[in-house]
Amino acid sequence: MSNQDQNLAATVNTTQGSYRVIVGRDVIDDLGTELQKTGLKGRAFLVVDEVMFPNPSRRAQEALERGGYETHVLALEIGEANKNLETVQIVYDWLADLLADRSDIVVAMGGGVTGDLVGFAAATWLRGVAVVHVPTSLAAMVDSSIGGKTGVNIPKGKNLLGAFHQPKLVLQDVGHLKSLPAREMSAGWAEAVKHGFILDAQLLDTFERLAPQMKALAGEEPVAAIRRSVAIKGEIVSADEFETGDHRVLLNYGHTIGHAIEKVSGYGTYLHGEAVAIGMMAAAGIAERLGMIDEELVDRQRRVLENYDLPVRASGLDVDALIEATKSDKKSRGGTIRWVLLEGPGKATTRRDVPEEVVREAVLAILD
Amino acid sequence: MSNQDQNLAATVNTTQGSYRVIVGRDVIDDLGTELQKTGLKGRAFLVVDEVMFPNPSRRAQEALERGGYETHVLALEIGEANKNLETVQIVYDWLADLLADRSDIVVAMGGGVTGDLVGFAAATWLRGVAVVHVPTSLAAMVDSSIGGKTGVNIPKGKNLLGAFHQPKLVLQDVGHLKSLPAREMSAGWAEAVKHGFILDAQLLDTFERLAPQMKALAGEEPVAAIRRSVAIKGEIVSADEFETGDHRVLLNYGHTIGHAIEKVSGYGTYLHGEAVAIGMMAAAGIAERLGMIDEELVDRQRRVLENYDLPVRASGLDVDALIEATKSDKKSRGGTIRWVLLEGPGKATTRRDVPEEVVREAVLAILD
Ligand SMILES: NC(=O)c1ccc[n+]([C@@H]2O[C@H](COP(=O)([O-])OP(=O)(O)OC[C@H]3O[C@@H](n4cnc5c(N)ncnc54)[C@H](O)[C@@H]3O)[C@@H](O)[C@H]2O)c1
Ligand SMILES: NC(=O)c1ccc[n+]([C@@H]2O[C@H](COP(=O)([O-])OP(=O)(O)OC[C@H]3O[C@@H](n4cnc5c(N)ncnc54)[C@H](O)[C@@H]3O)[C@@H](O)[C@H]2O)c1
Ligand SMILES: [Zn+2]
Ligand SMILES: [Zn+2]
Repeated sequence: MSNQDQNLAATVNTTQGSYRVIVGRDVIDDLGTELQKTGLKGRAFLVVDEVMFPNPSRRAQEALERGGYETHVLALEIGEANKNLETVQIVYDWLADLLADRSDIVVAMGGGVTGDLVGFAAATWLRGVAVVHVPTSLAAMVDSSIGGKTGVNIPKGKNLLGAFHQPKLVLQDVGHLKSLPAREMSAGWAEAVKHGFILDAQLLDTFERLAPQMKALAGEEPVAAIRRSVAIKGEIVSADEFETGDHRVLLNYGHTIGHAIEKVSGYGTYLHGEAVAIGMMAAAGIAERLGMIDEELVDRQRRVLENYDLPVRASGLDVDALIEATKSDKKSRGGTIRWVLLEGPGKATTRRDVPEEVVREAVLAILD
Repeated sequence: MSNQDQNLAATVNTTQGSYRVIVGRDVIDDLGTELQKTGLKGRAFLVVDEVMFPNPSRRAQEALERGGYETHVLALEIGEANKNLETVQIVYDWLADLLADRSDIVVAMGGGVTGDLVGFAAATWLRGVAVVHVPTSLAAMVDSSIGGKTGVNIPKGKNLLGAFHQPKLVLQDVGHLKSLPAREMSAGWAEAVKHGFILDAQLLDTFERLAPQMKALAGEEPVAAIRRSVAIKGEIVSADEFETGDHRVLLNYGHTIGHAIEKVSGYGTYLHGEAVAIGMMAAAGIAERLGMIDEELVDRQRRVLENYDLPVRASGLDVDALIEATKSDKKSRGGTIRWVLLEGPGKATTRRDVPEEVVREAVLAILD
């Protein structure tokens, strides 16, 4: 058993209730006891990314059983390509066969795709049943597992379907990251490092100073850094649950150009976190051109991202296509784009008055 | 324009906000101005049951346009048989083609099937966009349009998918009922009359006294009675939004046996409201046998239901099959069935301690 107080990264407060986010090594063994503390008493329906089956998921299952939960397990081969309603229907059918009812609990174990899709199934099963997230990719840990956003793709667009459905518990075992491919790790670090740049200069310092330890997941520092990154996401979500205020939008730092890069290069060419890293460089270029930050911070951001093996430039993309793509980004509807820009290390703001010429220059500067 | 204060049947208070339910004649012409009052400013995406197309829907569209809303209209042939994800996807595709965004508004115009399905689409489009209900069947007016429940069937069961997604406005034009088939009208009256029996002795008196006027929709009395029935549903929903308390369950009066009858006879044999009417008679029989009410109230209920052309007995059904079906009713999970029973006219309560023998006798008594 782990030191449970120390492992508590955040308590997220929402209109659907509060929940704890637990981050540590071997915490997967606490899944059943932590679930007990939420007061939930039904059966546990564990839906797991096939990549975590059978071993890590077996350990999760055993932990649930030790907590007194009857368990059922569904392993799914699941990825961005089948993050769609057909896959959701597999989950529905399974829940129907086992007569899952309103008192039962869905546990989503896997990367962000699993969390988004299984979270959606839980949100829409019998008008919403409890969901617990056990994210196993770094991106899912520091980002998608917290905040209750769920998402499913349709042929006409990514994440067009979804619901806000807050989990009852989020449990992150850093040990799961051992098997995560290196490129996926880097993509996850991009989001974690981003949290430092926009909101926490001290976390940024840590990421900068300890890149080798972080990447090796050696010792306690990486666990603490992930925990802090999780806490930042938790604070933002608590302050701005539905992304209607000024807080949650800060998380989109690097995402306006990042999304455009994903779209124009064809989804899958860059991992999301990679595109975000390049997008952060473009955003830094904009802030520099607007006189909000100096070149030194731009260089610093580039160095940090490179130290986490992230790309900071893109090649083979057309500047006009990218700028066009930013305009159709969801966040830009209703006219002007809301840019998230740095004012200093650990300090971000939003601006709508960025001249297209400045954007073009900054984008050109990150293109080969 | 109608007298707007008088037409306000209820204001429903929920965690997702408050909304008004407007009931009157010709209020459809106020749709645009009433929508303006909610503060919503996007485009209006009107999804309409084909049976209301093109004339009544055209009038709704013109009202929206007078309110300054850009409108798009999708007419669907929609019924219980295609209340499924395939039909929801038609709505998604249409919204995607027109780039419906978070500021836009979905308007559902039709019976309860339309409201449930279009409400589900709105709940899950971009994690939830505003929905306005314009119910056109009596059942949808007095029942399903209020309370935010949405539902979609899968092959393995009815309404297994859904979400709580409260509307921003509910607008009910009693004039729409002129074209509703007589059997559907009666089924709607069953739910309206039910509200009288469980919660409002005065409303019950009105339904009893004025059955011919009600059925002819003559004069102001029927409009006032629908308004009052709507108000009862609105009060219950406000007090017990998620059906976790003791209030909302009262609305299930007649539904435990009613659902069993629908299931055992094969869905579609009885309309839902018809099965509920018979179920109310079975429930009254239980209450009488438990000494909670006297024979007079049972007879009175029978007379009232008959006066609205509702069945009060079922034929060709097996008592064991019915009792078995009550046990798999969603409300009964976790052991005992929670029966809603009358204590007097306009007064209902719940009981879990009803002996199966009493249920059997009461069910036998309503079977031919
Ligand atoms: N809900 C939100 O707030 C939110 C935020 C950001 C992104 N997202 C969504 O998250 C998704 C991306 O998440 P992701 O990057 O985790 O993608 P993912 O779920 O596809 O996981 C990445 C890859 O790593 C594998 N994997 C996961 N954990 C592993 C482990 N421990 N060991 C070995 N392999 C493992 C997966 O099978 C997959 O191949 C996207 O669909 C995106 O839309 C959601
Ligand atoms: N969400 C809830 O709280 C809730 C509550 C009760 C029932 N429901 C759902 O509601 C549905 C039943 O609703 P319903 O009884 O309105 O069924 P419905 O929508 O199928 O309508 C009944 C019939 O009347 C037609 N119709 C509707 N308005 C008309 C009009 N003005 N003129 C002529 N024809 C018209 C319809 O096309 C249909 O043929 C079921 O799917 C049930 O699950 C939901
Ligand atoms: Zn991201
Ligand atoms: Zn009903």
